[in-house]
Amino acid sequence: MFDQDLAKKAGENLKNLRAKKPLIHNITNFVVMNYTANALLACGASPVMAHAVEEVEEMVSFAGALVLNIGTLTPYWVDSMLKAGKRANNLKVPIILDPVGSGATKLRTDSAKRLIDELSIQVVRGNASEVLSLAHEGSRTKGVDSIHSVDDAADAALILAKELNTTLAITGKVDLITDGERIYRVSNGHELMGYVTGTGCTATVIIGAFLAVDPDPVEATTTGLAYFGLSGEKAAAKAQAPGSFMIAMLDALYTIDEKQMEEGAKIHSQ
Amino acid sequence: MFDQDLAKKAGENLKNLRAKKPLIHNITNFVVMNYTANALLACGASPVMAHAVEEVEEMVSFAGALVLNIGTLTPYWVDSMLKAGKRANNLKVPIILDPVGSGATKLRTDSAKRLIDELSIQVVRGNASEVLSLAHEGSRTKGVDSIHSVDDAADAALILAKELNTTLAITGKVDLITDGERIYRVSNGHELMGYVTGTGCTATVIIGAFLAVDPDPVEATTTGLAYFGLSGEKAAAKAQAPGSFMIAMLDALYTIDEKQMEEGAKIHSQ
Amino acid sequence: MFDQDLAKKAGENLKNLRAKKPLIHNITNFVVMNYTANALLACGASPVMAHAVEEVEEMVSFAGALVLNIGTLTPYWVDSMLKAGKRANNLKVPIILDPVGSGATKLRTDSAKRLIDELSIQVVRGNASEVLSLAHEGSRTKGVDSIHSVDDAADAALILAKELNTTLAITGKVDLITDGERIYRVSNGHELMGYVTGTGCTATVIIGAFLAVDPDPVEATTTGLAYFGLSGEKAAAKAQAPGSFMIAMLDALYTIDEKQMEEGAKIHSQ
Repeated sequence: MFDQDLAKKAGENLKNLRAKKPLIHNITNFVVMNYTANALLACGASPVMAHAVEEVEEMVSFAGALVLNIGTLTPYWVDSMLKAGKRANNLKVPIILDPVGSGATKLRTDSAKRLIDELSIQVVRGNASEVLSLAHEGSRTKGVDSIHSVDDAADAALILAKELNTTLAITGKVDLITDGERIYRVSNGHELMGYVTGTGCTATVIIGAFLAVDPDPVEATTTGLAYFGLSGEKAAAKAQAPGSFMIAMLDALYTIDEKQMEEGAKIHSQ
Repeated sequence: MFDQDLAKKAGENLKNLRAKKPLIHNITNFVVMNYTANALLACGASPVMAHAVEEVEEMVSFAGALVLNIGTLTPYWVDSMLKAGKRANNLKVPIILDPVGSGATKLRTDSAKRLIDELSIQVVRGNASEVLSLAHEGSRTKGVDSIHSVDDAADAALILAKELNTTLAITGKVDLITDGERIYRVSNGHELMGYVTGTGCTATVIIGAFLAVDPDPVEATTTGLAYFGLSGEKAAAKAQAPGSFMIAMLDALYTIDEKQMEEGAKIHSQ
Repeated sequence: MFDQDLAKKAGENLKNLRAKKPLIHNITNFVVMNYTANALLACGASPVMAHAVEEVEEMVSFAGALVLNIGTLTPYWVDSMLKAGKRANNLKVPIILDPVGSGATKLRTDSAKRLIDELSIQVVRGNASEVLSLAHEGSRTKGVDSIHSVDDAADAALILAKELNTTLAITGKVDLITDGERIYRVSNGHELMGYVTGTGCTATVIIGAFLAVDPDPVEATTTGLAYFGLSGEKAAAKAQAPGSFMIAMLDALYTIDEKQMEEGAKIHSQ
């Protein structure tokens, strides 16, 4: 059923984000660095991209959240992510992981699993195959090949979130968010988002920004995804092709106000 | 003379591309990663950027084409390109090379030549000086300094394509495509394309996408360049300065349909 | 007081830039490579991004200016910057340094200071905390914590420019430019520039382009900043949110003509 409380909280989180302007530390892929930095600025946060092993521990100490994204990974970057992540854990800075391409290559799957094993990660966001590739041998989930419906995905996500002790967000036409207990669904969004590179990565940084102002990972993730999806809807009202659409999305992230957010959120709890 | 058959094939290739949505694996430069990924999505393909030596062989095995671009090269990236390229050759995945800046520095010239020597590369796209810099000592071509006219360039390209056993695309006001036997010219395009960074690199990835649906490298290259040039013409009808123009080009790549492509292609055979 | 001579020179520099189309060699951060390359093209210059230690000396030999930017630094890049910078010094190619994040981490502060120590750098552009972090132990400046007003910043900048023997540009709502003798202020600009990632970095590359056509570092910097700020003003007349604004800025860099520049420059000398 429609969750009016979370719709209201989406507006409040957005308001707090713009008031607090948290620094979001990103160790991310080369493709999306520019767009995700612009998305973070548009929503009111302050982005920094820094990956040198010599400085990530210092940099994360100023941050309200840490974003780890393995989209153009080499082993050096895994080391940086581990260093930054351990310091983040010590300082109680929330971490969100985007396991881009996990399941596609051994390097990515192994790296994503290692980050989850060695760090306390508050949220993992990916598509169904990326998220379900994170299950350990012997997991009670049966892998992405066994997912034939939205209900299958929800069952698998519930089990996996408990096993990994984190909040999982499986994004798609409808986003599914669960910590193994609660489940929310967000149906904001627009199909043109699939024609812009890094929309998934951008959803991740927006959740990162919301984590910096909302201590509840499930609610931060759910409200952040509603906000991001709503920006896609607003953009589609202005632009019908992907170039102008991706620019209109940045505009919408900036212009959506608290009231529009509250009224536009399509969040359902189970 | 105007080549009606290839104009028709341009429309068909575009239609097939959107139906097949091939994965295009890019090992490319940092400047254009975002824009070329967006261009590939806009035309209907599915881009992936991955350069770690640990994963490029796996990644290319899923690909319909491999794009190698030396625009911000270091030796590590040459190793990745060789690893990915050898696997691509084994799997019959077509390769296109963009020798950005070859001829300007020894690193770039040597690296481009090494890729051509050690791999079977189906298409090389660059400007006249980049392409002609690839000639080996003792080549019958006389280098870019000897090029004083379009006809000189055509003569040199014909010889070099035979010597290197590949298809060459020399792009400029009029694009020249040859495999050493056939020669085509494409006169689609607009001068504002020269004010957007990475338009050459973007032409290359579009050709890569066309290679994934058309087994004839000369025809894939020629039709791909007609499509890309037409997107510039459509964009110029909407935007008169480079910022809005580069966004309108992404829009045009998405909106040009099969019929517009067939009617808009300016392809001439000799 | 308003400086009519420099306003006129701003227009002349812009005209010369478009006539001369200098190559600007950038060793810069991953976030802004695409946008700054597009900004350089839009203003009439010709950008190249190249960072391999094997080629930076060759590449900078073709350049009209060298831009060093430490925004996503690792030690490898410092080596490249030093190699390129030494060759630039030998060849009298002007250098501009953007010490992104200096003062925030030891790696950045140490690297920026090392570049200034080992190279002859013509211009340093940053915000107040970045620029003032460059003071050596024992500097007569008291650091950014002691800056409570625009006049404090001007005093500190004057001292530091003399100590470092360079031109400093502290950019903000009003930009301050000084070589330790002359002081100029530029009040062009718009608040939306703060919502676009890399606007500071883009100001830096524009100054780089102006350095390639104007041998006086203070005047090149002042006129370049007036031009860049004016592009923000023109953009704000067309766009009210950051996505469309950043695109409109690129358009404005391209469309501002000599006369608009001369009339729009808000340059004050002290």
